Amino acid sequence: MKWCRLQSSGKAVYGIVEGSQIIEAQGSPFARYRRTSRKHALRSAKLLVPVVPPTLYASGVANYQAHVDWANAFFKRAPTPLPTRADIGYRATSALLPHGGTIVIPKDASDAIHYENELVVVVGKTAKHLSRDEALSCVLGYTIGNDMSERTWQGMDRTFWRSKNTDTFKPMGPWIETDFDLGKAMSITRINGKEVSRFVTGKFLFDIQYYISEITKYVTLHPGDAIWMGTDGATLPPLKHGDVVECEITGIGVLRNSVKREK
Amino acid sequence: MKWCRLQSSGKAVYGIVEGSQIIEAQGSPFARYRRTSRKHALRSAKLLVPVVPPTLYASGVANYQAHVDWANAFFKRAPTPLPTRADIGYRATSALLPHGGTIVIPKDASDAIHYENELVVVVGKTAKHLSRDEALSCVLGYTIGNDMSERTWQGMDRTFWRSKNTDTFKPMGPWIETDFDLGKAMSITRINGKEVSRFVTGKFLFDIQYYISEITKYVTLHPGDAIWMGTDGATLPPLKHGDVVECEITGIGVLRNSVKREK
Repeated sequence: MKWCRLQSSGKAVYGIVEGSQIIEAQGSPFARYRRTSRKHALRSAKLLVPVVPPTLYASGVANYQAHVDWANAFFKRAPTPLPTRADIGYRATSALLPHGGTIVIPKDASDAIHYENELVVVVGKTAKHLSRDEALSCVLGYTIGNDMSERTWQGMDRTFWRSKNTDTFKPMGPWIETDFDLGKAMSITRINGKEVSRFVTGKFLFDIQYYISEITKYVTLHPGDAIWMGTDGATLPPLKHGDVVECEITGIGVLRNSVKREK
Repeated sequence: MKWCRLQSSGKAVYGIVEGSQIIEAQGSPFARYRRTSRKHALRSAKLLVPVVPPTLYASGVANYQAHVDWANAFFKRAPTPLPTRADIGYRATSALLPHGGTIVIPKDASDAIHYENELVVVVGKTAKHLSRDEALSCVLGYTIGNDMSERTWQGMDRTFWRSKNTDTFKPMGPWIETDFDLGKAMSITRINGKEVSRFVTGKFLFDIQYYISEITKYVTLHPGDAIWMGTDGATLPPLKHGDVVECEITGIGVLRNSVKREK
């Protein structure tokens, strides 16, 4: 089942994507809902980010082997041993951008504007003290995030606030897929239709069960919270004015955004 | 004017504190409001955090000279030159706790459980690209935050997620004061009624105008966003089971919380 959020008569509503149609729902996937008789054409619907998470978590530094190696080379750091436990970070919801929206590069940003195609876990239920075995019981479904990064600022700012949370730098969508087979999924990125990156989505250093059980030792997860799971490999070439970037995860869909540089 | 948020007939509503009374409002200080005829006794009202910020900013690492010096000694770091620009960080709203609520120390936390009495700036209007001179125009008012920190975890976790965002570790309140004279304010902390810390609230390394103009170069501030401005000096003695901690900022009020250790 695919849950999207869309604008309908000026209001944000949830909808269920079925083929080329969206069935408008009353309520939300995080509480009660019912299907209504209102339908929208998927092609022309104005999609919103599928949820505005109360808290937006991100796997810290890196959660895939080849991305650690690439980032060390990119930032000219000595090769570091792989992390032995996950670093849990945050992103700001002020930076969220829906499928179809325009990523705006600030005037004073460098040219090192990189995509990061990431699996996003969407929490459906309040959860605390979940074991590894129980961890997935709080998950509603999965969507796609593009963890846009300005690499010069990333090297300068400990908290990544500008590098990763500049307005429009967190595209997320197009919808939440509740029936997702992580075992089969591939993450594929295209710029202007040309494939630039491909990796096995599930080859994490620290898996989803690990993140959920670690977080819920100390912090309550709430319906709508999202965990961005990191990216693998290189994130090149850099994005520039006029580009269209597509982050696909097979079994979920394609998150597509255009890129503009502020003048 | 003092804006509080409270529970009234099972709903969260805004109220205006006048002497020993709260006048219930319809609407909120972030949009339109009107005073209603419903009144509550301040003494017995169940206060909530005065706002749940869409984004909760925190001054990074340190924003007062004496706290930088103390923290270097505490963490056994070499004396570092003072920062030349502010580090902008985040806290998670999942950790918020109202005035009167109980701070719960997790079972496996160390004894290094520290208070940090902080001025909190509450944003009232959407703002982008504000100059220093324009910066305060987006501010609704000020409240108090206690940036509770588990110092052992703080030394281990780059993102401070556990050390500062464990459930209940972000007391904030009791209300938002819209008429606040920063020039005269003192920050005073008491444990079980005994004064343990006192500093001049406004002696920041980087001031409020700086934070707002820096943030809004890249990020839109939204109504309800909050910026925690850091603390000064030592944050000792550590808090333990059974303590009551009071963070006062003169001209705003007193944020009081009890402390419990999980068994």
